[in-house]
Amino acid sequence: MNLRHYVRDIPDYPKKGVTFYDITPILANHEAFNAVIDQLYQKYKDCGADKIVAADARGFIFGAPLALRMGIGFVPVRKPGKLPYKNRCVTYDLEYGSDTLCMHVDAVNPGDKILMIDDLLATGGTAEGMVKLIRDAGGEIVGAGFVIQLSFLDGDEVMRAAGVTYDFLVEIK
Amino acid sequence: MNLRHYVRDIPDYPKKGVTFYDITPILANHEAFNAVIDQLYQKYKDCGADKIVAADARGFIFGAPLALRMGIGFVPVRKPGKLPYKNRCVTYDLEYGSDTLCMHVDAVNPGDKILMIDDLLATGGTAEGMVKLIRDAGGEIVGAGFVIQLSFLDGDEVMRAAGVTYDFLVEIK
Repeated sequence: MNLRHYVRDIPDYPKKGVTFYDITPILANHEAFNAVIDQLYQKYKDCGADKIVAADARGFIFGAPLALRMGIGFVPVRKPGKLPYKNRCVTYDLEYGSDTLCMHVDAVNPGDKILMIDDLLATGGTAEGMVKLIRDAGGEIVGAGFVIQLSFLDGDEVMRAAGVTYDFLVEIK
Repeated sequence: MNLRHYVRDIPDYPKKGVTFYDITPILANHEAFNAVIDQLYQKYKDCGADKIVAADARGFIFGAPLALRMGIGFVPVRKPGKLPYKNRCVTYDLEYGSDTLCMHVDAVNPGDKILMIDDLLATGGTAEGMVKLIRDAGGEIVGAGFVIQLSFLDGDEVMRAAGVTYDFLVEIK
């Protein structure tokens, strides 16, 4: 199965000149969605992770089923004001401006082995924020898996600089 | 397993006098999370649904694994501006003001049998919006499953008025 066929190109979204890669056709097709989770499972079943950490909202769609399949816990990362218990947050720089990500203070504990999951590695901004958040909590990142990598952006350099080994299922050049 | 033990009460969130029921302890514990998906699966495995429709963002965490387990497609419902392809939206009344929910125009087709999944049935506002959105697209709602029902609010009346049969795993009175 070529998963690229289930990624829909949306030109000029969210702004003119940018193409958005829509993963909803993967979700609509059970075989494609199952193949994504199965391929991630095959890559990470022996990585030793205690927990999967994934970001709101598309990361939840892939991270939650994978955590269930791997038999480990699931930790949601969200924007400020979205998680009801005590939050640990990090603010990180983006190309223009900054952003903040939060998780519950008891979500990742020192020594926890963490697998990061997200739908997309693009500029690496969100991924870098997640790395910071997990390490601030004392977590050790044992892997990072993305459904899609946009290889024409700098996500790979950001991950290398952060010292995080990652993998992906669909490469868009 | 008593799932209520994995729902954390957060007093005065999001505002004073309101208690928020936090489901992240379910997610953190593989046995609890797996029990939720398994119990929903047992309830709905024979409901005949073609697709699961779930709302951003906690609905994704339960709806996506259940769709995979049931062998059917998954449709995300989100706020305006979040889904990149052509959107179908509905605006619905809340106690104070209104809200809007959207899905892709090709997500639900006439005659599709839909299972709605969400983490919480409270006032029923979001659920009513989802019902309207699915029916506007020609979908037939064959069931609605919630992890938690807050029985002291009017969600049950809203669902009854909408003619939707629903079920839940944890009742909070």
